[in-house]
Amino acid sequence: MKAFYGDLKLGILGGGQLGRMLIQQAINYNVTVKVLDPDREAPCRKLCEEFTVGSLSDYATVYNFGKKVDLLTIEIEKVNVDALEQLEREGVLVYPQSRVIRLIQDKGLQKQFFKENDIPTAEFQIISSQEQLLNSAIPFPYIQKLRRDGYDGKGVYKVISEEDLKGAFTAPSLIERWVDFEKEIAVIVARNESGEVKTFPLVEMEFNPQANLVEFLISPSTLSFEIQQEAALIAHKIADDLKIVGLLAVEMFLDKHGKILVNELAPRPHNSGHQSIEGNVVSQFEQHLRAIFNQPLGDTACLNNAIMINVLGEEGYEGPAVYQGIEKVLKCPGVYVHLYGKALTKPFRKMGHVTIVDADREQAIERARYVQKTLKVIS
Amino acid sequence: MKAFYGDLKLGILGGGQLGRMLIQQAINYNVTVKVLDPDREAPCRKLCEEFTVGSLSDYATVYNFGKKVDLLTIEIEKVNVDALEQLEREGVLVYPQSRVIRLIQDKGLQKQFFKENDIPTAEFQIISSQEQLLNSAIPFPYIQKLRRDGYDGKGVYKVISEEDLKGAFTAPSLIERWVDFEKEIAVIVARNESGEVKTFPLVEMEFNPQANLVEFLISPSTLSFEIQQEAALIAHKIADDLKIVGLLAVEMFLDKHGKILVNELAPRPHNSGHQSIEGNVVSQFEQHLRAIFNQPLGDTACLNNAIMINVLGEEGYEGPAVYQGIEKVLKCPGVYVHLYGKALTKPFRKMGHVTIVDADREQAIERARYVQKTLKVIS
Repeated sequence: MKAFYGDLKLGILGGGQLGRMLIQQAINYNVTVKVLDPDREAPCRKLCEEFTVGSLSDYATVYNFGKKVDLLTIEIEKVNVDALEQLEREGVLVYPQSRVIRLIQDKGLQKQFFKENDIPTAEFQIISSQEQLLNSAIPFPYIQKLRRDGYDGKGVYKVISEEDLKGAFTAPSLIERWVDFEKEIAVIVARNESGEVKTFPLVEMEFNPQANLVEFLISPSTLSFEIQQEAALIAHKIADDLKIVGLLAVEMFLDKHGKILVNELAPRPHNSGHQSIEGNVVSQFEQHLRAIFNQPLGDTACLNNAIMINVLGEEGYEGPAVYQGIEKVLKCPGVYVHLYGKALTKPFRKMGHVTIVDADREQAIERARYVQKTLKVIS
Repeated sequence: MKAFYGDLKLGILGGGQLGRMLIQQAINYNVTVKVLDPDREAPCRKLCEEFTVGSLSDYATVYNFGKKVDLLTIEIEKVNVDALEQLEREGVLVYPQSRVIRLIQDKGLQKQFFKENDIPTAEFQIISSQEQLLNSAIPFPYIQKLRRDGYDGKGVYKVISEEDLKGAFTAPSLIERWVDFEKEIAVIVARNESGEVKTFPLVEMEFNPQANLVEFLISPSTLSFEIQQEAALIAHKIADDLKIVGLLAVEMFLDKHGKILVNELAPRPHNSGHQSIEGNVVSQFEQHLRAIFNQPLGDTACLNNAIMINVLGEEGYEGPAVYQGIEKVLKCPGVYVHLYGKALTKPFRKMGHVTIVDADREQAIERARYVQKTLKVIS
């Protein structure tokens, strides 16, 4: 491989905020970056050597883009994997590997992989027909998930009773026993080509019970050492079993009995790792670069308590984004604003995130609530 | 002023590593950046919305560039100030202000400013002719400095005895009593348009007595509280007296009697503040952005001990840069590599820097020595 701190050409499939923050980190290593994204206004458009507008699902577009680089990575899983396979055959490095992306793209294959590798996960059944759904072995209530293309709650349907079956998806799906979870937790793990594996400390998602939404991400978790260790071991094992090269976000449930169940995987930097930019010795973006360039992985230790909140487009506003309250937020010590360079806001669109760092955890949480109340994206 | 987290167009005069790290930080605020630099291979070339190749000293080039932006800043002082003055008259924001750049460009005016404002500095005399030099009131040994265009030791001449006068500069200069200093120290200070001023904690330059070169920058200083307080007060006063908007690096000597003497000023991010990226709550680059956009200044507190070393082109090598030993360096915890995206190395060219962070100061220094021995830029 060409040295990653020199003339190497890195291609990124997807030009969103994850690509943007990856480029922000890659600046430290002189990497020449090219980006492919269907949106000509994507957040990466001005930050790379070459920005190509084109479909990530189209074989020829992805193939032709990949031929221009030495190493290809992703910031979104929904890409044409056949093109990636062909590029691998022709000697382009693709990290994460096409077979890993193919597996993770399909929630059915993902769940089967968990089962085959003794990775704890909620009981499930693959559904190929309406009949299978009607005669399933999973008792109510359960969750139906489309096998492909679901994200951020899309492609997910809750079935509480027979009543709900009318509205169920007809496309290939899986159904999964409803987990009455105590907490959503996540571990980000990285593996490089030499097989070195490192996990980031466990993070917790704090729910707002009124809005029934993830409100904060808190790092590090204050769950027991045993739970943290078990979560790290699970993430480490998945990275090893997959032999992934790159970053892998492992989203998990902690159920009411203290049992960890793996929910799903993302083979790339992930929203649950944004706080690592300021909160950890190395960030998830630095770690992804080190992994795909086969460099020694960095120290993942937490430097401090860090709370991350997503900055979403306010309901009722659509158009050019205006960031209300940002001056008040910048007055708070230990508050880091990251905007994603999106010209237009719409309700619940991820426009940025804010990380709040403090040695005093309660103080950090209080300040995070203030930031959340104060910073609004309107139009 | 347009909001700085939106559609504001920021122009940077100079596209070197300081501009590069400023852009890296500005990504967090959606700022649209345009850069002017004479070198088409400058470090910023791929990281901005528009990169213009052109002379920074040429009136029309700077003026035309400035007309395309809302706010103009610098990463190098050697720019055409007449153009900046005209742009200010026409309503373009120029921070730091043209009058501040004009004053600092001329080391004679800079010294006179110190004198007029009771800022402690080494005794000096402005030299306009050979005759003045021969009849100067400053005793040997002294330092002769060209009034304009000196940097990194260039434009500086040491006069030990009458013998040396043969080789003295004939261009307008000043001579300055030789300071037998104990330590070189620096404070970075920022001031925004509202008049808010904040200083970064004092840093020390560690000399290598064999090579007679600055070897490390160490943050924070372990000098006495009184010295730190005095240095901060001096920097604060200079920012107030200048009414600068933006960042100001104040380089100082601590003499053998414990007295602080201001050496010189740089009205921009500075090499003596690079460690702030990882070592302080906000970095000098973030602080410069906040100052010029008239936002609340950030918390400058140190998070940890941080040692910065410059990565210079090795003697005897000229050509495409190769970074030897970088993998070994990346294995060390708390070590942050910043390369500047320069394709070609030459002896002593600044190719990057490395910051070493550790709660244990001695450990950080030891690791810095290891990095220095290990990382070499050859060709």
